[in-house]
Amino acid sequence: MNIDGKHYRTIWPHADGVSVEVIDQTLLPHEFVIKRLANLAEAAEAIRSMVIRGAPLVGVTAAYGFAIAMRSDASDQGIAQACRALLATRPTAVNLRWALDAMRATVAPLPPAARADAAWKRAAEIAEEDVAISQRIGRAGMPLIEAAYARTGRTVNILTHCNAGWLATVDWGTATAPIYKAHDAGIPLHIWVDETRPRNQGASLTAYELGHHGVPHTIVVDNAGGHLIQRGMVDLCIVGTDRTTARGDVCNKIGTYLKALAAHASGVPFYVALPQTTIDWTIEDGVRDIPIEERDPREVTHITGRLASGDMAIVHTTAPGSPVSNFAFDVTPAAYVTALITDRGVCAASADGLRGLFGATDERQ
Amino acid sequence: MNIDGKHYRTIWPHADGVSVEVIDQTLLPHEFVIKRLANLAEAAEAIRSMVIRGAPLVGVTAAYGFAIAMRSDASDQGIAQACRALLATRPTAVNLRWALDAMRATVAPLPPAARADAAWKRAAEIAEEDVAISQRIGRAGMPLIEAAYARTGRTVNILTHCNAGWLATVDWGTATAPIYKAHDAGIPLHIWVDETRPRNQGASLTAYELGHHGVPHTIVVDNAGGHLIQRGMVDLCIVGTDRTTARGDVCNKIGTYLKALAAHASGVPFYVALPQTTIDWTIEDGVRDIPIEERDPREVTHITGRLASGDMAIVHTTAPGSPVSNFAFDVTPAAYVTALITDRGVCAASADGLRGLFGATDERQ
Repeated sequence: MNIDGKHYRTIWPHADGVSVEVIDQTLLPHEFVIKRLANLAEAAEAIRSMVIRGAPLVGVTAAYGFAIAMRSDASDQGIAQACRALLATRPTAVNLRWALDAMRATVAPLPPAARADAAWKRAAEIAEEDVAISQRIGRAGMPLIEAAYARTGRTVNILTHCNAGWLATVDWGTATAPIYKAHDAGIPLHIWVDETRPRNQGASLTAYELGHHGVPHTIVVDNAGGHLIQRGMVDLCIVGTDRTTARGDVCNKIGTYLKALAAHASGVPFYVALPQTTIDWTIEDGVRDIPIEERDPREVTHITGRLASGDMAIVHTTAPGSPVSNFAFDVTPAAYVTALITDRGVCAASADGLRGLFGATDERQ
Repeated sequence: MNIDGKHYRTIWPHADGVSVEVIDQTLLPHEFVIKRLANLAEAAEAIRSMVIRGAPLVGVTAAYGFAIAMRSDASDQGIAQACRALLATRPTAVNLRWALDAMRATVAPLPPAARADAAWKRAAEIAEEDVAISQRIGRAGMPLIEAAYARTGRTVNILTHCNAGWLATVDWGTATAPIYKAHDAGIPLHIWVDETRPRNQGASLTAYELGHHGVPHTIVVDNAGGHLIQRGMVDLCIVGTDRTTARGDVCNKIGTYLKALAAHASGVPFYVALPQTTIDWTIEDGVRDIPIEERDPREVTHITGRLASGDMAIVHTTAPGSPVSNFAFDVTPAAYVTALITDRGVCAASADGLRGLFGATDERQ
């Protein structure tokens, strides 16, 4: 997407052909800084320290990190070491493991001298495929926004939660892909951006990317969505998902479920955008069977921001000594999801809906 | 309530009999500082700068401020000046206006020489009446918690939003009164405290007062409540209200409605505690007829907290240049409210329920 008129991806090959550059997301929304990753250690550190984040982008960065590592050591030991170093950065990231498996499968059969070039080519393919997936989600979802515009004839108000945006992918994003497609097609939009406590990805990342691409938007606290939906200020909701069950339950950033309840209560469509890689065909009942990660309470008790002086600072905001829990995700049952927007099209959030798009289990990989 | 074993109210007469002391709430939860208000200007400034806040406490502080003013000027001009100065501090506060009307009505018929003593006595009565109202709410609501304990035989988990606690009143609070009564009666409790963005009154004030009184509790971000309720981690919810309609719709801090939706979806009781002074008998449909105040966006974009150095600081957290809306309240329709806990007892959130406790309109003042 664009930053002030210039097109950027979140990761791209450097002109030297042996390193990549990324947008340093730890400094957003306050500073736009490009960081070069020139060796395995730098790539691993970028993932670990969340210079880049978002499941699709983590996978692509790991693929490039692997390819970069092959330039300096393409031996079998080099392959093992690259996989080990990159996997350790975010041990629970499914996309990371998938990308490294793909890279290893590409280079392992080759003689060491051919591995670096093959790895670089494969990493670029993985990046292009990620962009293609987002584009397909965008094309699938845009008609839902067009329909709202055709119905009302005025600016379409869309609420989103967290950052399922281009900063979480290579380009376009997942939940934001239909939004960018509609905006670029000239449909008048206004996006309500949930702050998304505790890590504030909405207020910092989603607002940043919408603002710099020129999409009208307003930041609100997570508490506000019920009021906005109830009073007719939201035409539709689009969010992402980290994991989707075989019957269409959706596990996404904590707070998603509350917005789905509000949308349901007011008859407002609640859409979930996803690449098919997030579908977990082994699970039906997300509320029963998806364990919810609890993260460091410090994400709740401390907030990073910019002082009036321009310096960045971390402040402690909660009552000292009070215990804090930090549940990272929640599950929205399929009954509250109007439809799923996937890279194969739109379907009902149901076992039948998903089977209709993706075939029976034994036809899938 | 108690702070580390010692009983405090939020406001009390100084031993000199001509000034009052208050807890400076602008420094909570980081510092406990008592501030003396010895003249009209100091009382007005304490209200204006939110050294004290919460509708009931604002009213009581205004009453004492008026009484203090009478010591230095009990003329008719002195009365007018005290009312003007105090009303200007929070022009939309209903309790402030009510308290000043009561004070003026008490002293106006008296000769100036008798006004200061009469005003001091009336202010003390208003403070005692506030405590009595909270106590009645506490006694009315405690059986609902006892019933949950009797049913489960284990610690009762209660979710609350914002600060309808003793820090918003003279003592006991409204939503917290049943909680303190149950805790003091030995019922094992655990309170989920919503952070309550954007002003964080839950994480700073409610957590502070529960912690110092010894009530087990955990702070969570506002996004977490749906997950907690859905997974059976909440036995009941209790919140306050700023305005209650004649049919039981409830206007309370933004985000209340989302928690009520979650409770309703999971069959968890959602109670609203209120003094009858919050009932607006002129309005039925709260969603249609209660305008929602929009406050300064800076409450969303900037957060105050403590640096590692111990100094307090304000940091800017949102994407620079992104627009922000700050809706302060939302309306929870009566259909999502299990019951109202009032100073006259518990009733259904309905026109019939409220009429049953408070009589027909023409019997009320």
